[in-house]
Amino acid sequence: MHRTHTCGELRVSNIGTQVTLSGWVQRRTDFGGLTFIDLRDRYGITQLSFNEEFNKELNERARSLGREFVIKVHGEVIERSSKNDKIPTGHIEIQVSDFEILNAALTPPFTIEDDTDGGEEIRLKYRYLDLRRNPIKEKLVLRSKLSKAVRDYLNDADFIEVETPVLIKSTPEGARDFVVPSRMNEGQYYALPQSPQTFKQLLMVSGLDKYYQIVKCFRDEDFRADRQPEFTQIDCEMSFVERDDIINTFEGMIRSVFKDVKNIDLGDIPVIPYDEAMIRFGSDKPDMRFGMELVDLDEVAKGNGFGVFDNAESIVAINVTGGNKYTRKELDAFTDWVKRPQIGALGLIYCRVNDDGSFKSSVDKFFDQDKLKLWAEKSDSKPGDLIFVLSGKAEKVRKQMNELRLHVGELQGLRPKDKFNACWVVDFPLVEYDEGSDRWHAMHHPFTSPIPADRDKMESDPGSVKANAYDMAINGMEVGGGSIRIHDKELQKRMFDLLGFTEEEAQEQFGFLLNAFEYGAPPHGGIAFGLDRLAALLTGTDSIRDVIAFPKNNMGRDIMIDAPAPLNADQKKELGII
Amino acid sequence: MHRTHTCGELRVSNIGTQVTLSGWVQRRTDFGGLTFIDLRDRYGITQLSFNEEFNKELNERARSLGREFVIKVHGEVIERSSKNDKIPTGHIEIQVSDFEILNAALTPPFTIEDDTDGGEEIRLKYRYLDLRRNPIKEKLVLRSKLSKAVRDYLNDADFIEVETPVLIKSTPEGARDFVVPSRMNEGQYYALPQSPQTFKQLLMVSGLDKYYQIVKCFRDEDFRADRQPEFTQIDCEMSFVERDDIINTFEGMIRSVFKDVKNIDLGDIPVIPYDEAMIRFGSDKPDMRFGMELVDLDEVAKGNGFGVFDNAESIVAINVTGGNKYTRKELDAFTDWVKRPQIGALGLIYCRVNDDGSFKSSVDKFFDQDKLKLWAEKSDSKPGDLIFVLSGKAEKVRKQMNELRLHVGELQGLRPKDKFNACWVVDFPLVEYDEGSDRWHAMHHPFTSPIPADRDKMESDPGSVKANAYDMAINGMEVGGGSIRIHDKELQKRMFDLLGFTEEEAQEQFGFLLNAFEYGAPPHGGIAFGLDRLAALLTGTDSIRDVIAFPKNNMGRDIMIDAPAPLNADQKKELGII
Repeated sequence: MHRTHTCGELRVSNIGTQVTLSGWVQRRTDFGGLTFIDLRDRYGITQLSFNEEFNKELNERARSLGREFVIKVHGEVIERSSKNDKIPTGHIEIQVSDFEILNAALTPPFTIEDDTDGGEEIRLKYRYLDLRRNPIKEKLVLRSKLSKAVRDYLNDADFIEVETPVLIKSTPEGARDFVVPSRMNEGQYYALPQSPQTFKQLLMVSGLDKYYQIVKCFRDEDFRADRQPEFTQIDCEMSFVERDDIINTFEGMIRSVFKDVKNIDLGDIPVIPYDEAMIRFGSDKPDMRFGMELVDLDEVAKGNGFGVFDNAESIVAINVTGGNKYTRKELDAFTDWVKRPQIGALGLIYCRVNDDGSFKSSVDKFFDQDKLKLWAEKSDSKPGDLIFVLSGKAEKVRKQMNELRLHVGELQGLRPKDKFNACWVVDFPLVEYDEGSDRWHAMHHPFTSPIPADRDKMESDPGSVKANAYDMAINGMEVGGGSIRIHDKELQKRMFDLLGFTEEEAQEQFGFLLNAFEYGAPPHGGIAFGLDRLAALLTGTDSIRDVIAFPKNNMGRDIMIDAPAPLNADQKKELGII
Repeated sequence: MHRTHTCGELRVSNIGTQVTLSGWVQRRTDFGGLTFIDLRDRYGITQLSFNEEFNKELNERARSLGREFVIKVHGEVIERSSKNDKIPTGHIEIQVSDFEILNAALTPPFTIEDDTDGGEEIRLKYRYLDLRRNPIKEKLVLRSKLSKAVRDYLNDADFIEVETPVLIKSTPEGARDFVVPSRMNEGQYYALPQSPQTFKQLLMVSGLDKYYQIVKCFRDEDFRADRQPEFTQIDCEMSFVERDDIINTFEGMIRSVFKDVKNIDLGDIPVIPYDEAMIRFGSDKPDMRFGMELVDLDEVAKGNGFGVFDNAESIVAINVTGGNKYTRKELDAFTDWVKRPQIGALGLIYCRVNDDGSFKSSVDKFFDQDKLKLWAEKSDSKPGDLIFVLSGKAEKVRKQMNELRLHVGELQGLRPKDKFNACWVVDFPLVEYDEGSDRWHAMHHPFTSPIPADRDKMESDPGSVKANAYDMAINGMEVGGGSIRIHDKELQKRMFDLLGFTEEEAQEQFGFLLNAFEYGAPPHGGIAFGLDRLAALLTGTDSIRDVIAFPKNNMGRDIMIDAPAPLNADQKKELGII
């Protein structure tokens, strides 16, 4: 071992001890006859001191050490004259009696500091250097703790960890698969799993009862910001359960994880039906850190000669507590914000509630004080508040208002990164109609069961059928989702019929699962959580790239190793690829 | 929840309780008015009783239940009249008051019993049914425990679990890669990792200090018995360590795993240099469960006019304790066994040590009693023993004798599956000469460091240079291996020179790693264990297929899901594959 201690562990109680430390030169400070070096490793920083009076030659050598040199030092732990209370080792230093350069280092292309001077591209290219920085390193350490916390909980709950195959079969449904040509079976291809969905269902058929796996999944999507072609799921399935069994088990898991990893007690986790979530928040993954719920103004705002409202399917408001502070210019900025193509609103109506209780709206021409008072009553607005109103197609306007709510919430400081509020959203629609392909699509996937009470309507009114599905959202981010599965062959057949699969298509794509259902499939259900997203949430970053050791860029490239890359001709020939 | 208890938990103390159980019908026995059903789930079997006198209609319905039906029963726990001491629930049964069929089942294509009537092909096709059988299910449960034990140990030792990418870059060196065409980067390919070797070294450059991952790896080999295209490694790396640090840490891990999983204390784990292992066992992964070590007879068997020996480079013996029991016919069978092409010996010499101390050999014509006595002294043979002798080229004859030793050990009952003996083999040759390509090949991989004392000989006598590498073998099976890596750019360059890489080739294939070494790489080393092999060993099976939930067959096919499979034309076109 090239060390007796790490750079994070020596304290005043170690004073007088001879120690050997190894690590990286974080910083060197020269004071003529005195040289200080901050030596860094994963565990912390320890100050080394070199004194010309103590050893002139050693001090000279120390002055030649550059940033990020790897050195091994030997010396005595002594008390520091000027103490640093910001780091745990700040009361001691090492009076170095000898050292050795284990490896020299070129000057890094960016500074290895919490606030670095490197741009994203260069930091990805030299990811191994970026990982030396505390903000990135700590995220990986937390991710490791997160995985451990998940496993601890699930192991304690008698779940069995099972690895499912990575080389599987392509299913044309859903997102695009990555495929792998088979040399041994020419002209044939494996696919990489988008999720272990069918395998975990087969494990339930096999009686394993409780399964989990932290597993890589793959999706060949057109890359967008913060999508990765490979991502990690906490994948789980249970037998003989109903919806609330899953909700209880995995609410327990998430609570346990937040407690273990961040010592946070998640408060109440409400279970909200999809329809209600859309009405209250315009979103199926509402941010529950703050209120500012959507208010329906149809009753009080229609029929006043204001065409925009009168012709709208829906008029929706939010009340911004204390929002009357916004200047006219700021209100214009909100209007511009909702008119951006990403939001797509045609305009934004506001109504100030002044301190004296009077109102000032952008539509005073159509609404007098009494009329605006009705708005305020509906919205529970108080003096000093501000009401924002959007109108239009019902579904669209709610989604726009959701975006505005989040935006205003952000500006109002209602979405702090260290506050966490979770909710379950349940009773999703089973299917949604796709105008393009003129058919019904599964909102989750074709194995999601309809809630028992709605099964009669699967043929007569499919759009009204609710799925026995559930998502968990935390702080407005969907972190997990799943469903009670169909375990009955007849029901599965009706589902495939609804989705427009012919019997042959169903058999070709999912034959092995349908066959399995004939041999005693138990009632079962499951859930999958996005590990990357959970890690991002817990580390307060907006980008899952920050919590992945070696992420790909927006084009799906690993610019550090320069992959993907052309194959050589021999390899292509052997694989039968031209 | 479709149950109040599992089928494995009810005991005499539960008598009188009303319970709900769900599970599979394992067996139904009809005694006219009395019907018994063994209800099975992952946790065990509970007997259900139906009594005509208690409920005639229910008894009738129970008699229609077929094997593997999934049912949910309600009833009272009562004492069993004829107790079964073989199962933990054997003193109670459930007097069923009501039940419901959750799912019917076709008759399975093979019996779901410990000893099934199904052949391997059909069991792979219906793997989800095969997994219901105890012997397979228990192996998966143990594998899950094994992963947990590994993680517990490594987490406690402050290792960080880091996920490395699956979509990486192809390296033409070594085994064949599986590749993945990139749709977003036309004409370019990702490769699936054969191991995370370079990434874990980069993590050391990044200062993560202690890394582990239980990770899928991929190798596109020509399939042989018991090879899988995807397999699982326990992959580990540490910084600032020397060989013995790694050996101590991972010997601790293996001890801890055996203790946690099987409550076995692994005894002494000797560290054996490669040269010594070859001399004593003819193998670099010796089975240490028994002695029967190889004996060099050169001194005492040469120069007696027996041409086979006189012309041989090496004469090697083993002593079979009590082996004089073998009949002439059995000895002939041993001769046939070593002459098979897999072993390739030209013949087998034996020498019986009779109870009266006299000798009877197959070469009495050339060796009198005094000469044979010298063999016996060398081999430490006692009356009642048997000496087997092989001769030929030194390396070849030791390998043949290794095979014979294992074969005889097996027949002699010296290799019981419930006995475990481990050893480390160290000081492997760094490189081996390949006649075919007329160049030196790395015995492990090009990042393995030579032991410091041998570095001077890298250019002058490469074949004599020992690697700072170590393998762990248990019961004659290599379960893990690794090395202290090269962390110095100059040494790495000399290694590439030795292996015949041009600077351009080295740069093209490993440029990112070589660059990383310029920015302060710490001394580091690591190891990887085969999780599948460890699981096979611990469950006493000879096939890693038994410890994989959904294995591929010898042609790399998953015959349950029928993969690989042809792609449809659209998919191929999109990927630019013709």
